[in-house]
Amino acid sequence: MSESTVLVLGSDPPPTLDRLTGRARVIFTDEAGLAGRLPTADVLLAWDFTSEAIREAWPERGPKPRWVHTASAGVDQLLCPALIADDTVVTNARGVFEQPIAEYVAGLVIAMAKDFYGSWELQRQRRWRHRETLRLAGTRAVVVGSGPIGRAIGTTLLALGVKVDLVGRRARPDDPHFGLVHASDALNGLLPHADWVICAAPLTDATRGLFGKEAFGLMPPRARFVNVGRGPLVVEPDLIAALREWRIAAAALDVFEQEPLPADSPLWDVPHLIVSPHMSGDTLGWRDALAQQFQDNFDRWAAGEPLANVVDKRLGYVPVQ
Amino acid sequence: MSESTVLVLGSDPPPTLDRLTGRARVIFTDEAGLAGRLPTADVLLAWDFTSEAIREAWPERGPKPRWVHTASAGVDQLLCPALIADDTVVTNARGVFEQPIAEYVAGLVIAMAKDFYGSWELQRQRRWRHRETLRLAGTRAVVVGSGPIGRAIGTTLLALGVKVDLVGRRARPDDPHFGLVHASDALNGLLPHADWVICAAPLTDATRGLFGKEAFGLMPPRARFVNVGRGPLVVEPDLIAALREWRIAAAALDVFEQEPLPADSPLWDVPHLIVSPHMSGDTLGWRDALAQQFQDNFDRWAAGEPLANVVDKRLGYVPVQ
Repeated sequence: MSESTVLVLGSDPPPTLDRLTGRARVIFTDEAGLAGRLPTADVLLAWDFTSEAIREAWPERGPKPRWVHTASAGVDQLLCPALIADDTVVTNARGVFEQPIAEYVAGLVIAMAKDFYGSWELQRQRRWRHRETLRLAGTRAVVVGSGPIGRAIGTTLLALGVKVDLVGRRARPDDPHFGLVHASDALNGLLPHADWVICAAPLTDATRGLFGKEAFGLMPPRARFVNVGRGPLVVEPDLIAALREWRIAAAALDVFEQEPLPADSPLWDVPHLIVSPHMSGDTLGWRDALAQQFQDNFDRWAAGEPLANVVDKRLGYVPVQ
Repeated sequence: MSESTVLVLGSDPPPTLDRLTGRARVIFTDEAGLAGRLPTADVLLAWDFTSEAIREAWPERGPKPRWVHTASAGVDQLLCPALIADDTVVTNARGVFEQPIAEYVAGLVIAMAKDFYGSWELQRQRRWRHRETLRLAGTRAVVVGSGPIGRAIGTTLLALGVKVDLVGRRARPDDPHFGLVHASDALNGLLPHADWVICAAPLTDATRGLFGKEAFGLMPPRARFVNVGRGPLVVEPDLIAALREWRIAAAALDVFEQEPLPADSPLWDVPHLIVSPHMSGDTLGWRDALAQQFQDNFDRWAAGEPLANVVDKRLGYVPVQ
């Protein structure tokens, strides 16, 4: 086959694509140059996976990439009606982030159970104050999102002795790891029994604003909420109100409606709210892992084989087999 | 049998011993009254398990309790030559603290791997600064202490994908859970390969000062150290030096040479040192669990059955079967 053109959106820092040398013409672009270059590209690598420029720049007609790969698990930031309608295949970074995010969530859950934040504040004050904290084993978590990330979180919490209810789009009565996977319409019935509510869902029209006043109102006062999915899954003012009014015990957000979170955001100092800068999945070497994963898929592309991690563009994620 | 006398050292708060009603005469004492009352008691419950008064008050000769139970895992604070030489049986609180401590250690390890402390400091400053952190799976932990607490820590870390080397007093080549348990003389060979060094050993003559200049010098610069055993297992000035000179990356202490840690201790603000007030095993309901456990053992005592959790007084802990 003739040499392919791979267009890379973003270069800060650039990916290492050494395995494409001599096999593809690699062109880098920023957001401003994207629309002009898309018609010349066979493949688009969304290396800057936070950019929403693809939605604006995607050509309605004419030549365009036949394959888009994003260096992220979520695809909400690039899917647009024209791309969904096209034959273009979209693939994602499934496999890179699951284990790190599961570790991160487990750590947050333990840190909240054991009041690490209280201990650290007391350490700053040089005060010795013994407290009794929660035993994690035997508590109950609702994990929303039955894709690879939600499943990895669930598996890790199970290993810590937590009872896990996994919630997906559709019910699965005979899941090999979790037994029953609950359908999304079962969520409201599960929330009142939750010690932990973990959001690891993809952002779609069906999940936007999923955690708002109603959901927080259904959680018991002991509930602690964690979002590692996407910011707009949460109605941020409703979460702030729930925490300020002690309707839930604590929360941790790694993702936000607006990222980076502005310095004047009220979220920085809500009582019992832990804020981190969208880093739950980003472990040392993650960029190399993402570049290797894209090149592995390029090998399949060049050989005419089916690509890995193909997104169901209408669902907005890679369906679990 | 005639009614037994159970002497309880400590009453802040007192244990609930309702199952002893009508079966034993329960007498409370403080440290000052201990020596005078020991000759009248059949059983001593060291409810204030931090007290070292038993070592001073234990009678060389004459009537004395035939059974001492301590509401703690460690027994270093009460063993003295006269008690070791006596026929008196010593039992401990094995079974109550293992799972909570394992959860606590797993949380500390993840918090250090993911730099939760850095994120919290940045949150206070309202600063969004993304960092890449450690993937826990695949790292290597050395857990010192092959009793129930060390084993629970090891099992929990294994479940998180960490490779675990468990170190006990003697080697066990065919441990059912860990394969090889290393002998204490293997420790120095393991430390250079450790990402995590967890101290959960009993305090005995053989382990006092185990973690000092030599041990910290053998750890690699990436190593992070956690002590949930007893304070004197660590030579605190040597740990401070190792952290200040960046010879190891971080540490967390839940136990100290002097407890409560005085407000003017230098340990409160050593860089990369996390301090917590001896609470790793103390989850809500722990005092009730300790009182129930003592009463379960009293049932055995009253029935003339062998007691559970009998300490090998010469080793200084309950040997794992």
